[in-house]
Amino acid sequence: MTAPPHEAHGHPARPGRALPDTQQGMRRRNLARVMHTVSAEGPLSRAAVASRIGLTRAAVSTLVDELIRTGLLEELGPERPGRVGRPGSALAISGKGPAGIGAEVGVDHLAVCAVDLRGRLRSRVVRHGSNRGRSPEPVIGQLNDLVRQVLSEAEAEGLWPAGLAMAVPGLVARDARTVVHAPNLDWHETDLGRLLPEHLPLTVDNEANFGALAELWLGDGTPRDFLHVSAEIGIGAAVVVDGRLLRGTRGFAGELGHVPVRPDGPACACGGRGCLEQYAGEKAVLRAAGLEPGEDRVGMLAGRAAEGDEAVRRALREAGTALGIALTGAVNLLDPESVVLGGALAGLAPWLLPSLRDELTRRTAGPACPVSVSELGSRGPLLGAAHSVVRAVLDDPAVVAERA
Amino acid sequence: MTAPPHEAHGHPARPGRALPDTQQGMRRRNLARVMHTVSAEGPLSRAAVASRIGLTRAAVSTLVDELIRTGLLEELGPERPGRVGRPGSALAISGKGPAGIGAEVGVDHLAVCAVDLRGRLRSRVVRHGSNRGRSPEPVIGQLNDLVRQVLSEAEAEGLWPAGLAMAVPGLVARDARTVVHAPNLDWHETDLGRLLPEHLPLTVDNEANFGALAELWLGDGTPRDFLHVSAEIGIGAAVVVDGRLLRGTRGFAGELGHVPVRPDGPACACGGRGCLEQYAGEKAVLRAAGLEPGEDRVGMLAGRAAEGDEAVRRALREAGTALGIALTGAVNLLDPESVVLGGALAGLAPWLLPSLRDELTRRTAGPACPVSVSELGSRGPLLGAAHSVVRAVLDDPAVVAERA
Repeated sequence: MTAPPHEAHGHPARPGRALPDTQQGMRRRNLARVMHTVSAEGPLSRAAVASRIGLTRAAVSTLVDELIRTGLLEELGPERPGRVGRPGSALAISGKGPAGIGAEVGVDHLAVCAVDLRGRLRSRVVRHGSNRGRSPEPVIGQLNDLVRQVLSEAEAEGLWPAGLAMAVPGLVARDARTVVHAPNLDWHETDLGRLLPEHLPLTVDNEANFGALAELWLGDGTPRDFLHVSAEIGIGAAVVVDGRLLRGTRGFAGELGHVPVRPDGPACACGGRGCLEQYAGEKAVLRAAGLEPGEDRVGMLAGRAAEGDEAVRRALREAGTALGIALTGAVNLLDPESVVLGGALAGLAPWLLPSLRDELTRRTAGPACPVSVSELGSRGPLLGAAHSVVRAVLDDPAVVAERA
Repeated sequence: MTAPPHEAHGHPARPGRALPDTQQGMRRRNLARVMHTVSAEGPLSRAAVASRIGLTRAAVSTLVDELIRTGLLEELGPERPGRVGRPGSALAISGKGPAGIGAEVGVDHLAVCAVDLRGRLRSRVVRHGSNRGRSPEPVIGQLNDLVRQVLSEAEAEGLWPAGLAMAVPGLVARDARTVVHAPNLDWHETDLGRLLPEHLPLTVDNEANFGALAELWLGDGTPRDFLHVSAEIGIGAAVVVDGRLLRGTRGFAGELGHVPVRPDGPACACGGRGCLEQYAGEKAVLRAAGLEPGEDRVGMLAGRAAEGDEAVRRALREAGTALGIALTGAVNLLDPESVVLGGALAGLAPWLLPSLRDELTRRTAGPACPVSVSELGSRGPLLGAAHSVVRAVLDDPAVVAERA
């Protein structure tokens, strides 16, 4: 298994170690530049693409012809006249061809979707029901049914799957297929690769990571350096630095939930004491509010807080304070441009944010790091997964072109 | 001012945004590959270099000729016979030509050194004396005298300065020349560029960052993902991810000293309460040990602890505990391969480490992140500064060749 595709171009060149610059490598990188340019600014003529990426029109035409032949670009027909020079066809990213398949194993649901190279959601299915404590085989079996359903819908529209990316609520090894530890599913050292269709390139990752990538790629004005904090039962975070996920040596970076907030506080399953999760995790908030865990826990908390339930509001205020303390440490260490609350936290933001911001502000000499709320909310991880496959195609179209 | 030279090759290519791949860019990267290969494994013949980097011997010969002409490589004469084929000359990095000039403004000393492209220290001068509260002009004036002294020694040996890199005990803006805040010097928003020789490319950086780079480049078996913790009066840290410094949006990443350890603890100058510095900073440790700040504070603490002074030992034990709590949070967020104690902390490690490791271990479910002690200790920042200039030359020899 290679590195997750969204990292494929992310590693800095290491002179003396990386592969040499060859004509072949140059061609592959230039194919990617054409795809990214048309994706970001298209429709564009060949001449416009050439001037944007600084290559000759002849060189760009060769690249474009290859991308059209393999179905990644399409020609929209001649541009409207009135411009200087020979009228050129406008180029656009193909709405057929390769698609990214995203999948999500949540504690309370399964979901699968398909996103085309233009970034449009083309198909999405969700199945509600608790997966807590179920063994991986039946859960992934059901997920495979949903994958087949999405694939058949996508194929009917002229799409084919370029890869499958799956979000899970747990720690994933750097092989991008082994779930090392997913406490709320009770999955440990579980190789999901053996349970999923072999013909699809697979990337498994933590839901917080895919949520952060969705924010990076789809969020409105998201900076390239930010800390994304989300929650589904536990508290997860993802660190994005210069537009790349910081993964950590074992792939476990972003465990904000186990940052000590009050070092002599209650014992935590991680072995520590007074971890953030003991104050701001879903279980802790429900307990502090005097509520029993039910089906739609976030909805219940948000509903009661909106109705003015003082016990729930106080519990959320205290969770915000704990988040503020943990984030003060994280901001001091990482100096991000902003903090984004996503996932379940986004739905609770109105009651978490005031105390969170207070805490961050009073612990900071200068202006405090801005905290914003994700508009993607709980849709982030699934979208991030599907888009990670799409980005991998844009980043290295040659690989897909060979399979087309 | 461009980015610090040690970052010059560090940014990942961004398809669609970066400059296009050109023959010229390819030549520059291949020159770097030749330099890094000879630096890491030389002396080597042209044929050996070609096979290491995967280019033809003819292509490598053209690159090598250019590097010899500009004085970056030298030929050691024909290899010993007995090999197959035409005997080739062994190539080595030049011991003359460009050198990295490192400088350090410490609270209690100034230092300047020169390191050649082979990584050998060729000249070093140190001037002891407190700089606390002195204005930048006289301090940098004295430093310039030391720079001139080192330059004249280096020039007498056929070296010329490729750049000047300066370590300071404070936060440095991403322009790599403005000291934003150096509390122990009382320098704020100070542009050092205007005080230093204009003809030398300048990079100013935090001493913890240069200390971490020294550890990365010169340490024995240092991994490419680690957290480097150091101290000179305050507590600083630097995060190295995949062999690159994580700098943060404003350049302020690594402020471990202001991670909250006990959120209701004593007030800190940063605006927070119970920051790590309130427990493990030099001032806090001296106070806890009942000692007055003097000249060689680390030496004094280490001396008394070695003699069995129980108050000093207890103060260091407690500092180790606080470091362990703050590092638990940092390790959970970053998942580094190891933590390295450098700078003044290296000298106090025998008394800090037991409680630090205890804390980290008892707060971690699996095996705790290993903690080691830097062998470079307080020499790290100066060496890291000089080597950052040398690395910049190896990373892009074409720039220096044009100036040679």
